[in-house]
Amino acid sequence: MQGTEQTSSQPTAYTPTDRTVPTRSADRASYDRELVHAILDEGYVCHLGFVRDGAPVVLPTLYGRVGERLYVHGSTGSRPLRMTGKADPGLPVCLTVTHVDALILARSAFHHSINYRSVVVHGPAYDVTDPDEKRTALDALVDHVVPGRAADSRPANKKELAATAVIRLDLNEVSAKLRTGGVNDEPEDLALAHWAGVVPLRKGYDVPVADAGLAPGTPVPDYLTAL
Amino acid sequence: MQGTEQTSSQPTAYTPTDRTVPTRSADRASYDRELVHAILDEGYVCHLGFVRDGAPVVLPTLYGRVGERLYVHGSTGSRPLRMTGKADPGLPVCLTVTHVDALILARSAFHHSINYRSVVVHGPAYDVTDPDEKRTALDALVDHVVPGRAADSRPANKKELAATAVIRLDLNEVSAKLRTGGVNDEPEDLALAHWAGVVPLRKGYDVPVADAGLAPGTPVPDYLTAL
Repeated sequence: MQGTEQTSSQPTAYTPTDRTVPTRSADRASYDRELVHAILDEGYVCHLGFVRDGAPVVLPTLYGRVGERLYVHGSTGSRPLRMTGKADPGLPVCLTVTHVDALILARSAFHHSINYRSVVVHGPAYDVTDPDEKRTALDALVDHVVPGRAADSRPANKKELAATAVIRLDLNEVSAKLRTGGVNDEPEDLALAHWAGVVPLRKGYDVPVADAGLAPGTPVPDYLTAL
Repeated sequence: MQGTEQTSSQPTAYTPTDRTVPTRSADRASYDRELVHAILDEGYVCHLGFVRDGAPVVLPTLYGRVGERLYVHGSTGSRPLRMTGKADPGLPVCLTVTHVDALILARSAFHHSINYRSVVVHGPAYDVTDPDEKRTALDALVDHVVPGRAADSRPANKKELAATAVIRLDLNEVSAKLRTGGVNDEPEDLALAHWAGVVPLRKGYDVPVADAGLAPGTPVPDYLTAL
């Protein structure tokens, strides 16, 4: 991409580093900022990795994006958030988001694969202490799950804010990796009788089920039917 | 559960350890072996964490289960697999599998949540060098994605086997964590006008798309229509 095509002050791509360049399938890697944002914005569950007593820990958790910052929240008592609060200058984490798009069934077992899009973010996570940033982050977390929902819910009160820890991870050391397309079999396998092809994953949501205590006639909001 | 109800020689539950007991929401944790197996068997993509140069790395990858062993495979050139081959007595990893089942929209932002089921496995990963175990693992990896597929594909040849590394992680230090059910709002929020309820995720697959090179009339196998 041409730097001159930019409208914002940010480069169109993240700068690759030793740990964001894969040792294999480098052709599947991308550092394109828009692509990274798109993959991040399509999801809301990430897998957050950190090191505890020298060993890796990987936990699923919700996340939100605000510009070049990712936010993760949790109870002030949860391990990674407590560890971040104590870490100076930040807790080294790895945050990974993955979308599975299709199964690839090749004629050979070896060429079986999946189509996927993932983003891996490395960097230090910081405890968010500024109340305004914390509120912005919490809104982003809710809106990441259902866009438009944050404004249609009762905001966190003081007690809830105090019980919630938020950590921030800046988008600096970032890469996307993706596989698209169809089956890649060896030429000598093409005549084999095994079925081969692509099985796309079905995505989306089923009909919302209203809470039993909801006042009769409460309409399903537009942002939900838009899902 | 009663130990006397068992038919196998294995305990019905994994033994909790310091790192498999969560610091919060302990009521959502489970060590039940059947539940853990069921969550693992419903998936095929895990997030594998390991430590490189003191920092965590989390990568999405396929996995398969054979009894109390999980297998992950990849190119012999890929980082975690190369690191496992060199690690003695094994590379400390954390393997996490997560299924998202529903969005929980509460009246308060604070009580927004998701229904999920996850399994976290800690332990050393070992390089699989025995050819028979390697073949069994590779079949399990293919069958985890599409049950029955391994037998209906061309098995790996010598060259492919040599290019593929397989690592093993035993199911010893294991926990499941899950949230089920509906909205948990504060009593004083129940009269708020915000819609509240559960939005179930749609799961499954769309119609398989046959490879362009497939011989006309090749039927879609039963194990695919069963998906």
